[in-house]
Amino acid sequence: MLVVMNHDAADEDVRRIIETIEEMGYEARPIPGKQRTAVGLVGNDGKVDSGRLEALPNVQQVIHVTQPYKQVSREWREEATVITLSNGTRIGGPEVVLMAGPCSVESEDQIMTSARQMRDAGATILRAGAFKPRTSPYAFQGLGITGLELLVRAREETGLGIVTEALEPDMVDVVAEHADIIQIGARNMQNYPLLRRAGRSGRPVLLKRGLAATIDELLLAAEYILSEGNPDVILCERGVRGFDTHTRNILDLTAIPVVHALSHLPIIADPSHGTGVRAKVMPMARAAVAAGADGLMVEVHPNPDKALSDGAQSLYPPQFEELVEQVRIIADAIGRSVTRPLAVPA
Amino acid sequence: MLVVMNHDAADEDVRRIIETIEEMGYEARPIPGKQRTAVGLVGNDGKVDSGRLEALPNVQQVIHVTQPYKQVSREWREEATVITLSNGTRIGGPEVVLMAGPCSVESEDQIMTSARQMRDAGATILRAGAFKPRTSPYAFQGLGITGLELLVRAREETGLGIVTEALEPDMVDVVAEHADIIQIGARNMQNYPLLRRAGRSGRPVLLKRGLAATIDELLLAAEYILSEGNPDVILCERGVRGFDTHTRNILDLTAIPVVHALSHLPIIADPSHGTGVRAKVMPMARAAVAAGADGLMVEVHPNPDKALSDGAQSLYPPQFEELVEQVRIIADAIGRSVTRPLAVPA
Amino acid sequence: MLVVMNHDAADEDVRRIIETIEEMGYEARPIPGKQRTAVGLVGNDGKVDSGRLEALPNVQQVIHVTQPYKQVSREWREEATVITLSNGTRIGGPEVVLMAGPCSVESEDQIMTSARQMRDAGATILRAGAFKPRTSPYAFQGLGITGLELLVRAREETGLGIVTEALEPDMVDVVAEHADIIQIGARNMQNYPLLRRAGRSGRPVLLKRGLAATIDELLLAAEYILSEGNPDVILCERGVRGFDTHTRNILDLTAIPVVHALSHLPIIADPSHGTGVRAKVMPMARAAVAAGADGLMVEVHPNPDKALSDGAQSLYPPQFEELVEQVRIIADAIGRSVTRPLAVPA
Amino acid sequence: MLVVMNHDAADEDVRRIIETIEEMGYEARPIPGKQRTAVGLVGNDGKVDSGRLEALPNVQQVIHVTQPYKQVSREWREEATVITLSNGTRIGGPEVVLMAGPCSVESEDQIMTSARQMRDAGATILRAGAFKPRTSPYAFQGLGITGLELLVRAREETGLGIVTEALEPDMVDVVAEHADIIQIGARNMQNYPLLRRAGRSGRPVLLKRGLAATIDELLLAAEYILSEGNPDVILCERGVRGFDTHTRNILDLTAIPVVHALSHLPIIADPSHGTGVRAKVMPMARAAVAAGADGLMVEVHPNPDKALSDGAQSLYPPQFEELVEQVRIIADAIGRSVTRPLAVPA
Repeated sequence: MLVVMNHDAADEDVRRIIETIEEMGYEARPIPGKQRTAVGLVGNDGKVDSGRLEALPNVQQVIHVTQPYKQVSREWREEATVITLSNGTRIGGPEVVLMAGPCSVESEDQIMTSARQMRDAGATILRAGAFKPRTSPYAFQGLGITGLELLVRAREETGLGIVTEALEPDMVDVVAEHADIIQIGARNMQNYPLLRRAGRSGRPVLLKRGLAATIDELLLAAEYILSEGNPDVILCERGVRGFDTHTRNILDLTAIPVVHALSHLPIIADPSHGTGVRAKVMPMARAAVAAGADGLMVEVHPNPDKALSDGAQSLYPPQFEELVEQVRIIADAIGRSVTRPLAVPA
Repeated sequence: MLVVMNHDAADEDVRRIIETIEEMGYEARPIPGKQRTAVGLVGNDGKVDSGRLEALPNVQQVIHVTQPYKQVSREWREEATVITLSNGTRIGGPEVVLMAGPCSVESEDQIMTSARQMRDAGATILRAGAFKPRTSPYAFQGLGITGLELLVRAREETGLGIVTEALEPDMVDVVAEHADIIQIGARNMQNYPLLRRAGRSGRPVLLKRGLAATIDELLLAAEYILSEGNPDVILCERGVRGFDTHTRNILDLTAIPVVHALSHLPIIADPSHGTGVRAKVMPMARAAVAAGADGLMVEVHPNPDKALSDGAQSLYPPQFEELVEQVRIIADAIGRSVTRPLAVPA
Repeated sequence: MLVVMNHDAADEDVRRIIETIEEMGYEARPIPGKQRTAVGLVGNDGKVDSGRLEALPNVQQVIHVTQPYKQVSREWREEATVITLSNGTRIGGPEVVLMAGPCSVESEDQIMTSARQMRDAGATILRAGAFKPRTSPYAFQGLGITGLELLVRAREETGLGIVTEALEPDMVDVVAEHADIIQIGARNMQNYPLLRRAGRSGRPVLLKRGLAATIDELLLAAEYILSEGNPDVILCERGVRGFDTHTRNILDLTAIPVVHALSHLPIIADPSHGTGVRAKVMPMARAAVAAGADGLMVEVHPNPDKALSDGAQSLYPPQFEELVEQVRIIADAIGRSVTRPLAVPA
Repeated sequence: MLVVMNHDAADEDVRRIIETIEEMGYEARPIPGKQRTAVGLVGNDGKVDSGRLEALPNVQQVIHVTQPYKQVSREWREEATVITLSNGTRIGGPEVVLMAGPCSVESEDQIMTSARQMRDAGATILRAGAFKPRTSPYAFQGLGITGLELLVRAREETGLGIVTEALEPDMVDVVAEHADIIQIGARNMQNYPLLRRAGRSGRPVLLKRGLAATIDELLLAAEYILSEGNPDVILCERGVRGFDTHTRNILDLTAIPVVHALSHLPIIADPSHGTGVRAKVMPMARAAVAAGADGLMVEVHPNPDKALSDGAQSLYPPQFEELVEQVRIIADAIGRSVTRPLAVPA
């Protein structure tokens, strides 16, 4: 940490900085410059609260040199985290993982049909919401526990792994019992009680980037989960708030190589929420794989015209099949491969 | 709702729109134009899911005419909502309300000192966090229940109302027992289980705008609370994410007149989080009142240099006193007044 | 255009809207709804100024149904615009075009070396600035006319087409004399005198998206060029302003399929400015092609460590060679190909 | 400038940084830390191009300590710049200046009426465009030279100073001949040839903040003007691009105290473009003065319903009169005053 002084700071101001740093238990190192003096804080263990220093007289700014997160960083752990599900899917390794399915579980028929279609198209993980966070209190809120039970049936029949969302701490255990991966949605990226509970769930966690979260904030949210003892976190870029109304969000694909440089955690992309428009999902899904995503999460519905939620951004099943073909070739171009389809259970 | 077709949409495409609208239980009204046809949906009760329509062939866009929220809107209720606390403070009326205090409850001495200072300076509500949502899991997380009990002591001694944050649904009841107003923070604006529980708490709720929430999303979050039967919601503009690094956020003061036009709910401003820099708090607090805010929420600490959190944005007590003088004159300029200071309890 | 009234608008207010629309020379069509009345404006020729209507009493909002641009739209011209340069490169057809080279022309040796490297790696267009727009007045501003002359020499030797920037209207003619494509930079996207002059230059124009320009604004800027009689405009996505400091901008790749749906003009991507960081250029260049870009513009420098500008985002030549191999495979995956390398002049 | 190394950077990497800094003519000062080494660059004269350093192996980031601008900074010049017009108006001193008038000069009758109304209401500077930058090429583009001549007539009759926009370098001289202040619009904030020419015009320049410009970029744009010898620059906050569609932009009033801390130049606010909606102009104008703005620029039209441009955001003359009353009181609350009205010429 570097405390930069105003150009006309008095010696006394600099002394006060030095004393405060020492009082906080760190070493202070003054660095006189041509235009201004700076004071380095040496020994930062990631817990320094810069507020006390920013508040002192004639401080121009406090510059953070050390990253604020620890266990999620590549400096903490060099090799990539690879998460293996019970159906053999490995997330974070050389393979690109496909998670697909409808926005919500709507009925037994709908979810079983969808699960079979997704498995046949090559996905190894089924996505579908049982509890839905909806912007309006009057919109369809999901089937709840019944939805979770239907997902278990879909897994039994198809062998697909299950990823589904938990909305509050008290819901984590029941989701953990039924699903292979607990999803934490973008609106809850900084819901700390929920993160902590997911960190004690014993299940891998899919953590979506908040609507206007910086990458450092995303990594710090993941740090909450790791700090509770759960190392299996999958990050997900799903679009950030933008100013153009042609799409729902801006899918920030550069976050993928940025995260890969900073952290050992896998990161996937969700082009369905990232764009909000069916016709943009396929190009952006391809782009995500080309940018190095460790997987895709895509909304596909057996009959999008009748979907109870997110119909406008759900692919038709044949579109998803075409997409899988394309991303196989793209993965190959960068020395990766797409996870092999599951065998049909005997 | 208006469904706008592509200019080369076939009659068949238009018919499909009409049929779908009718199947959804509404009336369809085709509007042929020079360049393209549109189809109006008449009878929208606020529950229409436009996804089904956006997904149909040759639809260019779906335009929402009806607002998505109901009970929070000024069309639902013409006169302003006024919330009265037990100490007589009225929020949403002609008076501008002052909420002030430290970021966190740190100790009995700190909070009692602060409460007296704030009361003497003219605030009628004490703000301070007992449970703190922190971006890093390694930062100070608040005193918890002990903090709530200290806030009750501060109220007993000073007569100030108490506003403090609840972070999760299970925490709502205990906060409601101790505080006059339950705060829901920006990170939790779309934490729907929390909103619902607060809607059943029987206490006024202070709802902060999310970091990148649109005003419609803020109003829809409030709608969750009202839809559970709690009409006493105070909105709070506290800055949205911006791209300039000189301040922590952009304080979007235009939200104040925008909300006043759309909704009957009161809206206050938090210039401390809105700017994140002490030197910008006073000008922006003044500006908020000039823009029509129904109140201010300001961080003031007896000794900001030693604060455990947010020291850099906390005012010194004499700065707050000066600010109160200035906003009295400004309130007067627009035909309002600042809430009168509480009498010192005998 | 649809004028939506407040729910309590009087008949008189609606009549005033109708009269104003008719006074403006269009037809008015009232559409009574359950909650409010709307009035459609029929016959919009794209020149309606909605300001007059927004200003009238009890108007809630004015909704634009017709697109504000004309000649650039796909409804005006169905088939894609293909621009052919004198060296045979075709932009906007099935082939993906590669434009590469240093940020600035720095010396004869540097630009000739770079041109040969780029030609050998497979680019068919050389990019390099002779006039440089720099954020600071004290930074290197380019070699000017000398730079243009060196670019001509590079073309003579290598056969590469030349794209280089014009900064002001008076500079357009001299750039048009020396270059194959006139570049208009992001900072000048709404420099209308410059756009108009480029529209009369007789040369193809590469128009970069402004730092916070919506796609509609980008298309309207292109409309300025087409409205002067020049149909040969190439759009370029180069990143929009974001809030994360890990990258210079957010490269908004979704703009590519959005533009392809709205307009017949080709659109390329510039991942160098889009990310500002060398290590992110290759993944984002691949992603752009996967998303459907008609070409790439990439900064490559013979010796980035010594570059006079943009060294940190310039690729090393071997990196560019590797990138070209990768994008060939990706282009193939979506049924396109990369422009064939130029033959070495005998 | 501080070059921060990766935690596993080799001694050789650090040596290369030191050598490069010395090769660039500055002094290098290594600062070993607990987790990583940093190297300070001492002697930075504001011309260091950090790109060369960012590009070197194992550099994590380059941190700028010295501000990139010089003559505009408060460190260069302590006391505030005050600009005096020939009618006595002083901008940047204790007085708050009022610039008001229609968006465009439309006719002699319109501009003379408006000028009289603005003078009578207390403005001392008339704003009106003769050359209009319009997003669409088909919109009204202004009266041109005729408009300038009408503005001169308005000044002769009323004594008001004139501020009007120049769109391109060749237009600067003619605007300088007719106007008291040359306006450079938001779209042209980084039109460097225009800035340079304005820097040689001999007239004060009103420089509007670009739509997504950081404050540092705004100050660097002003530096272009000062570096040509013109010290008389007035900055203008006019809203930055946001994500909420209820207003045209987000008026970033915090920019006012931020600029005042960094620079000696005056800064005013334009709430008309900042909000784009008439009903929000008055509250935000008041807020700007409360935040410390050195002046206001407000669109007022004798008959907004008939305005050829920006009718929806133009105040009615009586609204402006009311606004002037309010801002007089607010200015008083913070120890300032509003410029006294001009005497009516005999």
